[in-house]
Order: sequence, then structure tokens, then C-alpha cells
Amino acid sequence: MPRPGESPRASLIGHDGLVKAYLIALDGSEVDASQEAAVRLFNEGKLLWLDLFDPDDETLARLSGFLGIHPLATKDAQQFGQRPKIEDYDGFTQIVAYGVQSITEPLVEVHCFYSQHYLVTVRKSDCAAFADVRELLTRHVIKHPSRLMLLHRLLGELTDGFFPVLSDFDERIDTTQDAILAKPTDQQLADLFQMKRWLIMVRKVVTPQRDMIASLVSGVTELPGMTREIERYFRDLYDHLIRISDLVDSYRDLLSGALDSYLSVVSNRLNQVTKQLTIIATIFLPLSFLTGFFGQNFGWMVHRLTSLPVFLVLGIGTELAAVTGLLLLFRRRGWF
Amino acid sequence: MPRPGESPRASLIGHDGLVKAYLIALDGSEVDASQEAAVRLFNEGKLLWLDLFDPDDETLARLSGFLGIHPLATKDAQQFGQRPKIEDYDGFTQIVAYGVQSITEPLVEVHCFYSQHYLVTVRKSDCAAFADVRELLTRHVIKHPSRLMLLHRLLGELTDGFFPVLSDFDERIDTTQDAILAKPTDQQLADLFQMKRWLIMVRKVVTPQRDMIASLVSGVTELPGMTREIERYFRDLYDHLIRISDLVDSYRDLLSGALDSYLSVVSNRLNQVTKQLTIIATIFLPLSFLTGFFGQNFGWMVHRLTSLPVFLVLGIGTELAAVTGLLLLFRRRGWF
Amino acid sequence: MPRPGESPRASLIGHDGLVKAYLIALDGSEVDASQEAAVRLFNEGKLLWLDLFDPDDETLARLSGFLGIHPLATKDAQQFGQRPKIEDYDGFTQIVAYGVQSITEPLVEVHCFYSQHYLVTVRKSDCAAFADVRELLTRHVIKHPSRLMLLHRLLGELTDGFFPVLSDFDERIDTTQDAILAKPTDQQLADLFQMKRWLIMVRKVVTPQRDMIASLVSGVTELPGMTREIERYFRDLYDHLIRISDLVDSYRDLLSGALDSYLSVVSNRLNQVTKQLTIIATIFLPLSFLTGFFGQNFGWMVHRLTSLPVFLVLGIGTELAAVTGLLLLFRRRGWF
Amino acid sequence: MPRPGESPRASLIGHDGLVKAYLIALDGSEVDASQEAAVRLFNEGKLLWLDLFDPDDETLARLSGFLGIHPLATKDAQQFGQRPKIEDYDGFTQIVAYGVQSITEPLVEVHCFYSQHYLVTVRKSDCAAFADVRELLTRHVIKHPSRLMLLHRLLGELTDGFFPVLSDFDERIDTTQDAILAKPTDQQLADLFQMKRWLIMVRKVVTPQRDMIASLVSGVTELPGMTREIERYFRDLYDHLIRISDLVDSYRDLLSGALDSYLSVVSNRLNQVTKQLTIIATIFLPLSFLTGFFGQNFGWMVHRLTSLPVFLVLGIGTELAAVTGLLLLFRRRGWF
Amino acid sequence: MPRPGESPRASLIGHDGLVKAYLIALDGSEVDASQEAAVRLFNEGKLLWLDLFDPDDETLARLSGFLGIHPLATKDAQQFGQRPKIEDYDGFTQIVAYGVQSITEPLVEVHCFYSQHYLVTVRKSDCAAFADVRELLTRHVIKHPSRLMLLHRLLGELTDGFFPVLSDFDERIDTTQDAILAKPTDQQLADLFQMKRWLIMVRKVVTPQRDMIASLVSGVTELPGMTREIERYFRDLYDHLIRISDLVDSYRDLLSGALDSYLSVVSNRLNQVTKQLTIIATIFLPLSFLTGFFGQNFGWMVHRLTSLPVFLVLGIGTELAAVTGLLLLFRRRGWF
Repeated sequence: MPRPGESPRASLIGHDGLVKAYLIALDGSEVDASQEAAVRLFNEGKLLWLDLFDPDDETLARLSGFLGIHPLATKDAQQFGQRPKIEDYDGFTQIVAYGVQSITEPLVEVHCFYSQHYLVTVRKSDCAAFADVRELLTRHVIKHPSRLMLLHRLLGELTDGFFPVLSDFDERIDTTQDAILAKPTDQQLADLFQMKRWLIMVRKVVTPQRDMIASLVSGVTELPGMTREIERYFRDLYDHLIRISDLVDSYRDLLSGALDSYLSVVSNRLNQVTKQLTIIATIFLPLSFLTGFFGQNFGWMVHRLTSLPVFLVLGIGTELAAVTGLLLLFRRRGWF
Repeated sequence: MPRPGESPRASLIGHDGLVKAYLIALDGSEVDASQEAAVRLFNEGKLLWLDLFDPDDETLARLSGFLGIHPLATKDAQQFGQRPKIEDYDGFTQIVAYGVQSITEPLVEVHCFYSQHYLVTVRKSDCAAFADVRELLTRHVIKHPSRLMLLHRLLGELTDGFFPVLSDFDERIDTTQDAILAKPTDQQLADLFQMKRWLIMVRKVVTPQRDMIASLVSGVTELPGMTREIERYFRDLYDHLIRISDLVDSYRDLLSGALDSYLSVVSNRLNQVTKQLTIIATIFLPLSFLTGFFGQNFGWMVHRLTSLPVFLVLGIGTELAAVTGLLLLFRRRGWF
Repeated sequence: MPRPGESPRASLIGHDGLVKAYLIALDGSEVDASQEAAVRLFNEGKLLWLDLFDPDDETLARLSGFLGIHPLATKDAQQFGQRPKIEDYDGFTQIVAYGVQSITEPLVEVHCFYSQHYLVTVRKSDCAAFADVRELLTRHVIKHPSRLMLLHRLLGELTDGFFPVLSDFDERIDTTQDAILAKPTDQQLADLFQMKRWLIMVRKVVTPQRDMIASLVSGVTELPGMTREIERYFRDLYDHLIRISDLVDSYRDLLSGALDSYLSVVSNRLNQVTKQLTIIATIFLPLSFLTGFFGQNFGWMVHRLTSLPVFLVLGIGTELAAVTGLLLLFRRRGWF
Repeated sequence: MPRPGESPRASLIGHDGLVKAYLIALDGSEVDASQEAAVRLFNEGKLLWLDLFDPDDETLARLSGFLGIHPLATKDAQQFGQRPKIEDYDGFTQIVAYGVQSITEPLVEVHCFYSQHYLVTVRKSDCAAFADVRELLTRHVIKHPSRLMLLHRLLGELTDGFFPVLSDFDERIDTTQDAILAKPTDQQLADLFQMKRWLIMVRKVVTPQRDMIASLVSGVTELPGMTREIERYFRDLYDHLIRISDLVDSYRDLLSGALDSYLSVVSNRLNQVTKQLTIIATIFLPLSFLTGFFGQNFGWMVHRLTSLPVFLVLGIGTELAAVTGLLLLFRRRGWF
Repeated sequence: MPRPGESPRASLIGHDGLVKAYLIALDGSEVDASQEAAVRLFNEGKLLWLDLFDPDDETLARLSGFLGIHPLATKDAQQFGQRPKIEDYDGFTQIVAYGVQSITEPLVEVHCFYSQHYLVTVRKSDCAAFADVRELLTRHVIKHPSRLMLLHRLLGELTDGFFPVLSDFDERIDTTQDAILAKPTDQQLADLFQMKRWLIMVRKVVTPQRDMIASLVSGVTELPGMTREIERYFRDLYDHLIRISDLVDSYRDLLSGALDSYLSVVSNRLNQVTKQLTIIATIFLPLSFLTGFFGQNFGWMVHRLTSLPVFLVLGIGTELAAVTGLLLLFRRRGWF
């Protein structure tokens, strides 16, 4: 790495006091993230991790200049919306990775600049993984970590954060499917569509994130400081990403299954409702015809409908006969 | 393999008497699975197979330390929920494989640690394959087996266990499909969704399990003790896994076909029901209109509806004419 | 190939006279398939082809021992249900291939053991391909064939047997599709499901069969006796298998198209039926209301409905006006 | 190429005057396609192109013998129904390619035998590409072409012939889609199915045709006479085939989209029709009930329905109230 | 590159004053695009960029001759409708790329001819990317650019132009999906079909455009003037194209999800409408039957329906009982 100039410029971080940053020294202790502290640590070779939260473009540009980060990589960190990728530059490696907070929040994009002399991370939203790793460091659970193991830990926490969220998602598919079978509503369709959208978004970052780690593990991309032992840990991380990627594919299948069953349930319900309508109409339309028939004002007929037996046979009997016949017909069709 | 220290610690297995384990010596005989026995066998180089059933984390950790198993591999065996994989470590190989008991039970995850000095398996649920292999050993059907052939046998039994379960699954698809054609219900949809879920789960383990054995057969991963003859047996195992994987793909197709036909059957039924409704309405609505017409209280009309011929022509005749016309219409449309 | 022992054991084939077998000498003549004949031919180096029909396990095991066939290969031939594959052993090659008889019969699995000294085939059901090849040999259409060319011929006949059956299948798809367009029934759905199942089964064997021949043609697997000229014939066979595989994929597409159109046709019919119902109801419900209205027993109204003009205007006129209005409405909607 | 015997046999082409053939000399001039002419041109090394139209098997066999074409290649040309392929033989190359005439006609299969000494084409149906190339030759637009450039031209014309036909197909999809949106009929379903079938057929030849040219361009298969300049022309041809293949894939997508929208349109229509039915029934069934109520023969009631106010309130008022209430209900549901 | 002849012919560009062209010198300044200027700049080695807008075939041919562009490449630029591709010729490289203006306009095809001595672009429609790059050049934002960096800039602007348009598309999918859930219409189906068509078109150019840049980045195709630093910029461009390609795939998924939910929404609506119809019919058909019954002219019955209690019990009571019973039934079925 071309070591940047010796004279650190003023106001490196948070020139107007607005940039939130965490600064960790090589021994794991957290240092107040002022510009001087970062410069001093870097110059002494003791800079472990500088974590920038939503820095303004100017700060980022100055910092990049100071640390020798390529303008293209800096531009990515300013624009965000990148795919997970690992890009080898002279003197440092750019890594873009994603984490997740919950089903309802957008994914957390993290830009890492890793070199033998520092690990810088840039992000625009909060993610539990960061606080967790920071805590592990300050509680000295991880003792004297190398910058590469720290990078692994961070990527690992980001990745493992997907498991509980996907587990929630899994449950939500099941809940929705059960709800559909119980009573299909338009709201469920909107939910399914939204879930599909979320899953597509997750898939769009998980697949390249997996491939990025694969390129590390297979040795296509090399990181300084990588040993066989550390590679094993990255291999483990790779394994987790494959599992996540498999999960996402499964949910995709289940979601489309849920949509299909929605249609089927609705059709089946429609069938039952229509069958009831048909039964009602099949019973009462003939009966109404009969009553209508004897309600006609044909003099000849009216004069012959006066006695009780006639009423019992024609008024009651025909109706009963019709109903009986129809019920027999329905039973033969297996409708009851 | 770095041979672990000479002084075996106390209470290696089942320190509180709760860990179930099976211990098999190199000559195939089953030894009471106490800690001393395992240590003694291992030190004498006579440890063939140690099968741990749901060990607590501490026991597993101590055992791993004793046998020189890497913490990452131990952590996997403590957490479970891994993908089938084969991972080469110094001195031992970690293999994660899956078996199946029945359609209704979850899959059986098995972690194997194989080295030239031992075969250790860890699992959390029971699976017929284990008892079968143990019986073969103690009945001396397999005489003086090498640890690798034992591993093959175990993986083979786990794998072949899928065939009868998948055969049940096949039959269940057919039964469901027949039931759908006979009478579609919501319950069938729930069944199909559950079957899909099960199949996705099986697929998620069968594909990597197949690829894992493929990497063994193709020589990408090497196991100590592998000979050309033993490789042939693994190739046979690979073949079985391809068949299982093909079966799973077929069932996936058939399941989606069953779901599609559900919708079609329901629609067809709806069609028939609606057609009947239409026929009934088409016959009786006009007839009711006619009876209603002659039931009106128009004096002029009522005075002219008094004679028998009028009744026969207008009261009976028009109705018969209407029915006849409609029946002719229906016949022309091929509805009878 | 390690030549097996000199002392042929008794009752090699059909030890109890039940095993059906065909024995062909190197000059193409058919020899009575007794055990002595087979042994004599083999020892004289004149054994061309031994075709076993559903042998019992014992016969097969003894034969394998005699010919030096590996137990794994023998086990496959005893169990059947294998995938098409080619497996290279010391001294012989195991080939599993499939043929077809008709759409309604199960596929014909054939196990071939090919070496420079013999071609042995094992099968459990009959297939025209075998009789055809035998006839070609005995009629000396194929003169002094090499064992490899015989193997090619056999695989070729098995493969080409798929063409007429798939052609029948093609026609059956068309017939079903036409029948669906004419009048959709539940039976067609059952047919489509069964056809799908058959196609999946065929696909499961055709793809690996194609790949198996591909491995022969590309030189991944080598057969003794292969020359550039014979390879050309296998390349031709490979070509046929690709065509079959393409056909199967096409039919898969067409079948799913047929299922989709089933649903569409049914829905369209339902639409028409419902439209008719709607027309009927839209015409007669208003008319019935009108007749009902004038059938009410309001004294004031009844007293004013006595004259002919009133009857013509209110009794006939309103009804005609209603019908006319509705017909105009329907025409404007394009329902006639 | 092994030059065939010097003594040309009699009746090479059209031994009974029935075989239609075109014979082009090296200078581009068309020669009367008699047997003597072909033999003479070939012996003089001036045979550019021999185009055979549906030759009988015997003629083809004799010709093949004369030109040194392998029996396997000849058999393919006799049977037809081959996949597009390029096959390298000693002394010549066999190329099977397809052209198209229109959506309603079957594809045109062309077998080419190319060597440094001739280009022979065999086909069984007519295709504009042939006449076009012949005209270009005789009009000397292509001057002194090499046999390879001629082959390229021919394949190019066959390939480019797909563009206008696919463009027609594209338009037909649009027309059908528009027609479906206007008014779905069963005929459209039959059309879509037929179009799908056609597309599958085209796809089955375009993909291997593309791969065949790819193997030429990538140098996997070599043709004698190929130069870097000519290769550029084949690369252009390859490009066209990729575009055709892309188009076919797009149409596949659009066709399935059209089928899906068919179902959706039909369902939507059904919805509207059913809604109208429901409106009619919801209005007139209550009204009919009311008229029926006051048409009952309860003496007590009839005696109280005599005055005008009663008629206005109960006879007209209740009906108006019911209609008003229902209209308000419909408006609130947004049905108007 | 074979330097063309020294004597520039007359009327190189716009021989009749109709061809619109932009001519940029090496220092970034825009020069009046006359033929003399272009020739002079080229001869002086100061030609940076010549941008031709819809040139006629003759102009293009003359220009190609002058600059040494191969006829095949010229023909492509005359015909248009090419796939994105990069083709290496002697002395220059042909690049076909696509840009986009809006969802409603066709894609913008751009043909670039790049060499160490010039960059020529040909296009037939306008695209903001061109004006943007020109402005950057003339405003000297890009100072002394190399021709390769200019090519990168141009391809980058064309590519980045997809982002806002796809973002519009994304929003349109959401809008349509919301509209479908609110009220499905035929128009939405037409929209979805059109959107699908647009997406297929975009996909057809984005995928090869991405692969084209991939071949540049991976070094399969080499451009003169490429340095490691510039390659980094092309890698960035490649990244953008992957993102676009991923987006297109996502939208494809979402579109098909929208179509599926259309069908589901329609079916659900149908269900509700039919349920209402059934409720109405189930309530009023029995009631009408009752009123019809007591409207019959059976003398015996009529004589017994005279008193008030009879009216209350039979006339009102039975009706109320029927309504109450039906309402209870509906409540038990959960229809209210």
C-alpha cells in the first residue's frame, strides 16, 4: 500500500461534529472517534477498525485520500445500492456485503475497506451485528484479533443475522397458508406479493454475497493475512451463505405454492356456494311453478279446486312429491 | 493426526450417566460405552466406532479435545441444522449426512468424524440405519471391517432408507390425485402444501449429499484408506443418491401437476353445477312467468279464461310448448 | 480379464430348467442354451452373446463367478431398478440401458456385461428389440459381427424402439387436446396426469442413457474393441438419443399446455353457461315481477283493471316494452 | 478425399428421369443436370454444387458411392428427420440444416455434403433460399465463389428465412392477444396450442443449428478451405442464429403470457356477467316477494287492501322503498 | 490499422447536407461536422469522436472505406437490429450497445467503431447519453480524454440510463398491482402483457451487453489502449450491467406474480358476488314460495284463510320463521 502523506489534515472525521463513528484500537479498546485519534492510531499502526455511520461525501472523500482508497471504491460507498462484491485494488480490498434487521426494514448495506493496516466500514443504517461485534471486542471475548478475523466476524454476524429473520419469514408463510385455507381474502394476496418482493430483494444480495465468499475460499480472490486456519472460518461462513441461499429458494417455491393454493381454495369455495345456490333454486323454482299454476285465474280450473281432497292431492301432494323427487336426485348425486 | 495427550480425563462419556452411546471395538464386538472403555480402545488402536446419541455440549467438547477434533467441526455437531458436507481437517474428516425415518418425522442429521483411528458419529434422533449396521457388526455379517467400509455402510444405510419412504410418498401422491379426481376438498390442498414442504426439505439435503459423495468418487476430496475397490462401493452409493435426487425431482413435478389438476377438477365441477342451475332456471323461469301471467287480475282477461278448452290451450298448452321448445334447445346444444 | 477357472461347474444356466436363455455363437448361429454349451463356447472363445431372461439370483451369481463379473454389478442385475449407466470394471464393462414396448407397459431394463470374450444381457421382461437382433444374426444379415457391433446394434434397437412409441404419445396428446377443446371431462385430467407420469419415467431413463453414450463417444469411457469406424456408429446412436430427449422435453411442454388449455376451456364454457343463465334471469325476473304486480289483490287496482284497453296496455304492453328494452340492452353489449 | 473410381457408372442422376436436380459449375453457370454432366464436371474438378430434390434411395446410394460419402451419412439423407448437426467424415463433412417457408408449412430439412471437390445438397421440399442462391450465382452477383462461401451463403439464406416468418409469428401473437382481450373464444385456445407446437418445433432445430455454427466458429469442427475472412462470415451467421434463438425464447414467454391472460380475461368476464345476474336477482327477487305477498288469498288482508291510499303505500310505496334501498346499497359497494 | 489513402474524397459526411453528425477533436472541442473537418482531424491524428445520426447507406459506406472499416461491420450499422456484441476486426473493434429513453420508446441501438485513431458512433434515434457526454467534453469536465475512456463513458451513460427507466418500471408494477387489488380490469391485463413484452425486449439486449463487457473485463476480448486502471472502470460498468440484469429478472418475477394475483383477485370477487347472489336467492325463493302457496285458488284453502289470526300465523309467521331460520343458518356458516 502506498503510505499516504505524513501530514494529516484537520477535521478528518466529523468535520462539523455530525458524523457518527466508532474507532477501535488494535488491542480491542474503543477510542473516542475524533479525527486526531484515528490519524494517530493509523500512523502508529494501531488502527484496528474504523466504523463510519452515514458519513457525508466530503468526509468520506478526505478519508479515502488519507488512507489511499481508490476514487471508484469511494464513489460506490457514497452512492450505495451496490451488489455484494469483492474488488481487489492496490493496497486495499473493497468488500460490499449486506445484513438484515427485520422483514419490514430495508436491507443493511455495508462497505468494507480492508487492508493490512486498517478495516474501515461504511454504512447508512443501523444493524445489530455491529454493536454485537463491538461489544465482543470491548469485552475482550475476542482477544488481540487480526484485522482479517475481525472482518470475518463482521461478515459472519451480518450473514447469521439472516437466519432468525428467515425463520420469521418461514413462519409467516405458514401462517398465511393456514389463513388462506381458513378464509381467503384480498389482503393475503397483497401480503404474498409483498413477501415475494422482499424475497426477491434478499435473493438479489444473498446469491452474490455467497459467490463473493466462494471466490475468497477457492482462492480466486486473495486477502492479505489469510492463513489456512482463517480460511477454514471463511469456509464455514460460505456454508452458512449456501444454507441461506437454499432457504430463500425454498421459500420462493412455498410462496408460489401458497398463491396457487389461494386460487384453488377460492375456486373450491365458489364451487360450494354455487352448489348451494343450485340446490335452493332446484328445489324452489319447481315448487313456485306449482303454486303459480294453481294461482291462475282459469275459471274452469278454479271451479274444480274447491274440495279438501283436491287441495290435499294437488295443493300439498304435488309439492311433497316434487320435493321428495329432488331430494332423491341430490342424494344419488352425492350432494348430501 | 496429532495424537492427543496420554492422560485421559475422567468421565469422558456420559459424565452424569445421561449420554447414550454405543461403542464398537475393531473386531466388531459391542463394548459397554463407559468412558474408560472408549479411552482404552482408542489408546490400544482398537476403537472402531463410537456412536453418540444426543450428547451434551460439554461431553462433546471434551471428547473433541481428546480426539483432536477441530472446534469448528465440534461447534457444527453442537448446533446441528447443517447442510450435508464433507470437510477435510488435519487428522480427521468431518462428514454431515442425513437419513429419514418416515414422511411425518423430521430428517435425521448425522455428524461423522472419520479418521484412520476412529469413526465417531453424533446424532440427536433415532434412525433404523444405526441399529441395522450395529446388528450386522455384532452378528459378524461384516467381518473385520475397515473404518472406511463401516462409514460407507452407514452412509449407504442412511441413503437407502430414503427409498421406502419416497415410495410411500409416491403412493401418497397417487392417492391424493385420485381423491382429487373423486372429490376435491380443502384438506387435500393442505396435504399437497405439506407434501411440497417435505419434498423441499428432502431436496435441500439430498442434492448436497449427492454432491458430497460425488466429490469423494471424483477424487476431489480424499479419505485415508480409500482403495480402488472401496471407491467402487462409494460409486454405487453415489448412484443411489442420483436416483433419489431424480425421484425427488419427479415428485416435485407430479405434485405441481396434482395442484393444477385440483384447480381443473374444481372448475369442471363448478361448470356442471352451474349448467344444472342454468337448466333449472331456463325451464322454470319462463313457466313461472306464464302461470304468473294468467294469475293477473285483469277483468277482461279473467272473464275470457272460463271454459275448459281455454284452460287446456292456454293453461296447459303454452306450458307444454315452452318445455318442449326448451328441451329441443338443450338437446341441440348437447346438454343431455 | 482374469480368465476364470477351467473346471466349469454343473448346471450353469437353468439349473432347474426354468431359466429362459438364448445363446449365440460367434458365427451368429443360435445354440441350444444349455449350461454345457455356454461353457464350451466360452472356453473355445466362441461365445458371442448370452441373453438371460429373468434368471434367478443363484444362477446369476454362479454365472457371474464363472465369467469374472464383480459382485456389485451382479447385485445390480439381481435388484434391477437401476439408472442407465456405464461402469468400467476390471475385465468387463457393465452397461444398464432401457427400452420401451408401449405406452401402457413399463420400460424394459436391460443389464449388459460386455467384455472382449462375451456379451451377456440380463432382462426381466420381453422387448421386440431382442428378437429383432437375434433374427438379424441368424438370418446372417449381420455377418461375423464383433461383440461391440452387436452391443451397438442392441442398444440401437432398444433406443430406436422409443421413436414409434413417442410418436403414438404425440398423437395421443393431440387427440386429448382436441377432445378437451370439444368437451372437457374429468377423465381427460386423469389421462393427462398419467401421461405426465409416463413421460417423467421415460425422461428419467433417457437423459442418463444419452449421457452414457456421450461418455462413450467423447472417450471418457472406453470400450475394448472400439475403432474410429465403430465410434461413428455410436455417435449416430448418440444423435438418436438426443432427438428422443428433445422429443420428451417437447411433450412435457405440450402436456402442460394441454392442462392449461383444459382450465381455459372449462372457464370459457362456464362463462357461456353463466351468460345464458344471466340472460334468462334478466328477461324473466322483470316479467314475473310485472305479472306478480297485476296479480295483487289491491281492491282499488283490481277495479281499474277491467277493460280491454287496460289489459292491452298494462297486461301486454308493459311486458313487451320490458322485453324490447332488454333485447336492445343485450344487443348493445354484443351478447347476440 | 479418396478419389472414387475412374469409370463413372451409367444413370447417375435421375436414372428414370424422375429425380429433379440442379447442377452448377465452378464458374457459376447452371448445367443441365444429367448424369454425364455431373460426372464430367466432377472429374474435371469443376463441380461446384449439385442440388438434389427428393432423390430416390437408389440414386442417392449410387451417388454416394461415386462421391465417396459414408453409408451412415447417406442413410441420414434417405431417412430425414435428423437434428441439425455437423459431422466430420474422411474426405467430406455432413451438415444437416433447416430452413422455413411459412408458419403453416413444415420446416425444410437440408442435408449438405461438403468437400473440397463438391457441395451436394439433398432436400425433400422446396425453399425460397435455394432459388435465391441459384439466381445470385447465375446472375453472377457472386463471382467465382469458393464451395465454402457457397455453403455459407446457403446456410445464411436458410437462416435468414426465419426472420420474416418469425416476424409474422410475432404479429400473430399480438393479434391473438388483442382478440383475446376483445372476446375470448375456444378457437383462440386451439390457435395458441398450435402456435406453441410450431414454436417448439422451430426451437428444436434452431438451438442445435446455432450450436453447430458455434462449433464451426470456435474451431471445434474444421472445414477445409476455411480462412479467417470466411470465418468472419460464419461468425455473422452465428450471430443471426443467436438472435433467432432469442426471438423463439421471447415468443415462448409471450405465448404463455397470452394463455395466462386468456384465463384472466375469461374470469373477469365471468365476474361481470355474474355481477349483473346478482344485481338483477337482488332487485327483482325482493320485489317479486312483495307482489306475491299482496297476491295471497288471506281474506282479512284482502278486505283491507281496497282503498287507493293503501294501494299507493303498500302496492307502490314498498316496492319503491325496496328499489331505492337496493340502489343505495349497490352504490355504496361501488357497483355502478 | 491499414491507413487509408491520402486523397480524401469529396462530400464525406452529409454529401447532401442531410446527415446530422457531431465531430469532436482530441482536445475535447466540438468542430463543425463538415467532411473536410473530419478528414483533416483524422489525418492529423486529432480525431477523437465522430457521432453520426442516422446516416444514409452511401455516406456510411464511403466513410467505412475511408476509415478502413470492414464491410460486414458496415452492413450491420446499415441494417441495425443487431444484438449487443463486440467483434474484433483488423485495425478496429465493432461494438454494438443499447441505451434506453423511456418505457414507451423503443431502445436506442448504438454502433461504435473504436480504434486507436478514432471513435465513430452510429445511431438512428436520439438518446440523452450522447448529449450528456458531449456536454461533459465541451465543458472540459473530462480533460484530454483517451478514446477508450470516452468509449467507457459513453457505454457507461447508455447503461446507467437504464436505472431511472427501470425504477419507473418498478413503480408501474406496484401501481398496477395495487390497482388490481383495488379493482381488476381488462386494461390491466393489456398493460401487463405490454410490460412483459417491454421487459423481454430489454432482457434480450441487457444480457448480451453484460456478457460483452464481461469478455472485455476478463480479457477474452482486448481493446488497444486498455490499462489496468481503465479496466477497473470497465469492471465498474460490468457491475452496473449485472445489477440491471438482476433487476430485469426480478421484474419478470414480479410481473408474473401480478398476473397470478389478478386471477386470484378476480376469483375472489366472483366468490363474493356469487355468495351474495346465493344469500339473496336462499332468502327470497322460499319466501316467494310461501306467498305463492297462499295465493293458490284452492277453494277449501281460501275459505279457511279469512280470519286475522290465520293471517298473522300463516301469512306473517311462516315468513318470519323462514327468514329467522335462514339467518341462523348463515350465521353458523360464518357468512355474516
